[in-house]
Amino acid sequence: MPKIWSETIAAHRDAVRDATLDATAALVAEHGLTGVTMSQIAKSTGIGRATLYRHFPDVEAILRAWHDRQIDDHLRRLLEIRDRTPGPLNRLEAVLTGYATATSHRRAHDPRLNALLHSGEHVAAAHEHLREFVRDLIADAAGTGDVRRDIPPDELATYTLHALSAASTLDTPSAVERLVTLTLSGLRAPA
Amino acid sequence: MPKIWSETIAAHRDAVRDATLDATAALVAEHGLTGVTMSQIAKSTGIGRATLYRHFPDVEAILRAWHDRQIDDHLRRLLEIRDRTPGPLNRLEAVLTGYATATSHRRAHDPRLNALLHSGEHVAAAHEHLREFVRDLIADAAGTGDVRRDIPPDELATYTLHALSAASTLDTPSAVERLVTLTLSGLRAPA
Repeated sequence: MPKIWSETIAAHRDAVRDATLDATAALVAEHGLTGVTMSQIAKSTGIGRATLYRHFPDVEAILRAWHDRQIDDHLRRLLEIRDRTPGPLNRLEAVLTGYATATSHRRAHDPRLNALLHSGEHVAAAHEHLREFVRDLIADAAGTGDVRRDIPPDELATYTLHALSAASTLDTPSAVERLVTLTLSGLRAPA
Repeated sequence: MPKIWSETIAAHRDAVRDATLDATAALVAEHGLTGVTMSQIAKSTGIGRATLYRHFPDVEAILRAWHDRQIDDHLRRLLEIRDRTPGPLNRLEAVLTGYATATSHRRAHDPRLNALLHSGEHVAAAHEHLREFVRDLIADAAGTGDVRRDIPPDELATYTLHALSAASTLDTPSAVERLVTLTLSGLRAPA
């Protein structure tokens, strides 16, 4: 098979996959976790049921794949923020603001959907990745004396991510900004 | 029915109820949510199945009742700490330490069990009660200038409870103490 042809197939497969994830997320948001069938998803995506089943065994598998994609996009954006912001303290503040803002936009799932989405290995791995990423930014800022050194960066990262999870209850950018200010006040070197 | 007799019946009913909750929590901890039947619970509690069904329709109802009792005990202990500690800042610190310590001892449930236990109205009401309780302690400490006034007590309380939820990942009393120190640093009046 010529290379151009295999690339076309791969691109088509990715496009089908992305369209399926988007359609499923929209259907579940509208009808709830138990109100969506594979037939509806196939119809909404505009592909045959047989094709859909070649990609995914069931609705839950599609939702997990959708959630994994969300997480990867989220982490990628935080890495971009880190790479374009100079200075350890500014960098830390910019990344934490990005994280809190994304958290405040997260749609509230029903508890069963949450349990499904957060039980996967991908989520645990991504969470560990995020924790290490934040811990390293904190350690850098502790190195320049901008962040306290009386508590290990590991514990500071755990505190930070839990404190910022409060953003899921906040509606306005200014409230999110105040939460980041508060959380950073905890991290700052004691006077 | 003489009063003494109705009191004996009430005490007996409470004792059966408490024993049922304890036995169910122990069985679920050992066998998991789906591995426990009403028959096992009746046997373990030492009562008949018919008696058990007069008190509870199913295992989930018993678990919810058990969790509600845990929450009430937890809140009562925090109220006791508040009432015996003098001074707004000391009082706030003592209650937050009590809350974080209890959170660090909380057994990690599996996600499905968590979804079941946290979907009830009692949990939502208790959480709101706790948030108001902490918000009032924060407002008192802001009144004496010990806590910052540039952010509303309501947002400070949301930050505080989320930050302290990190205690569920901590194993030692000294790590819990450091988490409380950090969280309070965020709350303190900016220099």
